[in-house]
Amino acid sequence: MTLIKSNKTLKGHKLLIVTPWGVPPDTLDRLKTEFPDLEVDHYTLTLGWAHKTAATEPPVPVEAWKDVTILLTFNVLPTPDQAPKLEYVQLVSAGANHILKEPIFVDTEVNFCTANGVHGPQISEWIISTFLAFEHHIPQYLHLQKEKKWDRAKFGTIEDAVSKTIGILGYGSIGRQTARVATAIGMKVHAYTLHPRPTPESKRDLSWTPEGLGDPEGLLPAKWFSGGSTAELHEFLSSELDLLVIATPLTDNTRHLIAAPEFKVLAKAAKDRPRKTYISNIARGPVINTDDLIDALNGDLIRGAALDVTDPEPLPDGHALWNTKNVIVTPHVSGASTSYNTRVLAILEYNLVRLSEGKKLTNQVSRREGY
Amino acid sequence: MTLIKSNKTLKGHKLLIVTPWGVPPDTLDRLKTEFPDLEVDHYTLTLGWAHKTAATEPPVPVEAWKDVTILLTFNVLPTPDQAPKLEYVQLVSAGANHILKEPIFVDTEVNFCTANGVHGPQISEWIISTFLAFEHHIPQYLHLQKEKKWDRAKFGTIEDAVSKTIGILGYGSIGRQTARVATAIGMKVHAYTLHPRPTPESKRDLSWTPEGLGDPEGLLPAKWFSGGSTAELHEFLSSELDLLVIATPLTDNTRHLIAAPEFKVLAKAAKDRPRKTYISNIARGPVINTDDLIDALNGDLIRGAALDVTDPEPLPDGHALWNTKNVIVTPHVSGASTSYNTRVLAILEYNLVRLSEGKKLTNQVSRREGY
Repeated sequence: MTLIKSNKTLKGHKLLIVTPWGVPPDTLDRLKTEFPDLEVDHYTLTLGWAHKTAATEPPVPVEAWKDVTILLTFNVLPTPDQAPKLEYVQLVSAGANHILKEPIFVDTEVNFCTANGVHGPQISEWIISTFLAFEHHIPQYLHLQKEKKWDRAKFGTIEDAVSKTIGILGYGSIGRQTARVATAIGMKVHAYTLHPRPTPESKRDLSWTPEGLGDPEGLLPAKWFSGGSTAELHEFLSSELDLLVIATPLTDNTRHLIAAPEFKVLAKAAKDRPRKTYISNIARGPVINTDDLIDALNGDLIRGAALDVTDPEPLPDGHALWNTKNVIVTPHVSGASTSYNTRVLAILEYNLVRLSEGKKLTNQVSRREGY
Repeated sequence: MTLIKSNKTLKGHKLLIVTPWGVPPDTLDRLKTEFPDLEVDHYTLTLGWAHKTAATEPPVPVEAWKDVTILLTFNVLPTPDQAPKLEYVQLVSAGANHILKEPIFVDTEVNFCTANGVHGPQISEWIISTFLAFEHHIPQYLHLQKEKKWDRAKFGTIEDAVSKTIGILGYGSIGRQTARVATAIGMKVHAYTLHPRPTPESKRDLSWTPEGLGDPEGLLPAKWFSGGSTAELHEFLSSELDLLVIATPLTDNTRHLIAAPEFKVLAKAAKDRPRKTYISNIARGPVINTDDLIDALNGDLIRGAALDVTDPEPLPDGHALWNTKNVIVTPHVSGASTSYNTRVLAILEYNLVRLSEGKKLTNQVSRREGY
């Protein structure tokens, strides 16, 4: 593969956009202004198309691929032969697991970039909203409202979040934006990452961040825990957390990471404090052992839980978790936002600028790590 | 009245604490360490006592008043004769209306200071929590949870708050802390104050602010509107607000400030935008005309409303507002917090330091303005 020489106008480049949603005219206009020599081709797929790999099928004709150097797609991918000039694939998903076995990924050096960073705002809003709603008894007041009852004394005074501690297990783009909002509320941030981050360089967020948001330099945590061992995890869980946010990917190592022993550690850490830990899970259901979670809630080892993800998922009718006390369950909706596509296009534009300047692209999928 | 000369140890001063709640031992210890020569006397009143002016009655004996120079109280006040050395009264309430006719206020130059600033954190949490909960369909999901139903498609995708605009009518301590959190979420802030604030000095928050919170320098608003006229108010309401927070005191000028004409202005400003304004009222019910609000909600002139205060209040059984569409009603609870007393004591300590240094006290009640 001979790369096109970096140039400001992206002369010689052809961008193919293959998405289930249309591209707004102002984005196309902006691309034209920013990169006057960039050729842009666009195919809108129906949602059905988006769910299979179908490079050679309609609606994208085979001949459309041959000059493509840049591709925006979810899972419609060419073979290396079909798109010999391809340099950069921008995925519209934050995950890359669905492309790891594709020949165009395995057998070439094409840069694949994820949409990592698109979820920070909406998911952090879900976390903050459900946590504060729980603390301020909003679910109970909504119930009282349905009964048309005005009763100021019923649920007691609330504890506000100032000087409380938020522990964030997995300090990526969602965790960092949550940390930003929690800091503004007056909370202290404890971060946890698999690998230690002792230097300013290592604390940096390498994924794309919406301008002015997140914690790009990793400056917000008052304490930064790390490690892959149970002892290291328990040290973090012992740090008197008022709110524990689960924002780690699901891997073999994180499956059932939070189970009976961890709930005990949380409860023990809360022994001398006025209140226990509230848990928010927006990652994947199986990071928490569901049976142990139900026991912990029923046994008052924790203060409550907000769950956008469950295990099993979907949560079946009649499952005990639905009405376990102090729990809020929503059906895996926290990541959806009408701004999703706008942010994906912002990542594409961000990387096009870097490409035009010959700089390293952001959000690159590592062929070694597979994410 | 001869003032005691400012001195670091508060020699010659006697602090009398007359509160319905006990003072934590660590506060008393800290006062003793910070001001070794300050004499401290403490009477705890039952809640009944706190609701009348009863300086000469038990449990505070008459002789306890005569050397008092500093008083922490809600409404238990001496006459000028009973406490001839009094220099500074720290009220535990954010309002001062209940002391304006007291001889010790009217006939002396004793400094009266309010607890202005204690409400910022908890009320801003209520505002952010109810707004985001509404946007993320949390009330509907809580209802689905009760029915034990997993349905991802039912309520549609949400709009997150990034780049949305929050308008804050009354940019005091509550408005400023709300602006801080909204900014962290990614919102733009439009502030509105009665008087213009063109200079850095005039933008400053003169009331006490919990450390690291609020907007002490008034730097967060992207636009700052002001004025007492309808035209000026309508200019603010026309500035494409996604969220309008009512945080103004109730005065003759603000009664029914938001009524049918204002809802029309909001709807007109939203005409070319994807969505209308959501209103949050944590001030006083009568700032909004309730009948007009119900019409605006039913007529889709606004997106919805979160109301911690209503008019009439308490909202009677069977009142139409209880189940008007897109409304959240809580029974005037947003200001309560278990940290309230801690913050009042923080204000007292803050002002004791200023007193010891001969500086102007914070949160002073103006004898001219009456607040």
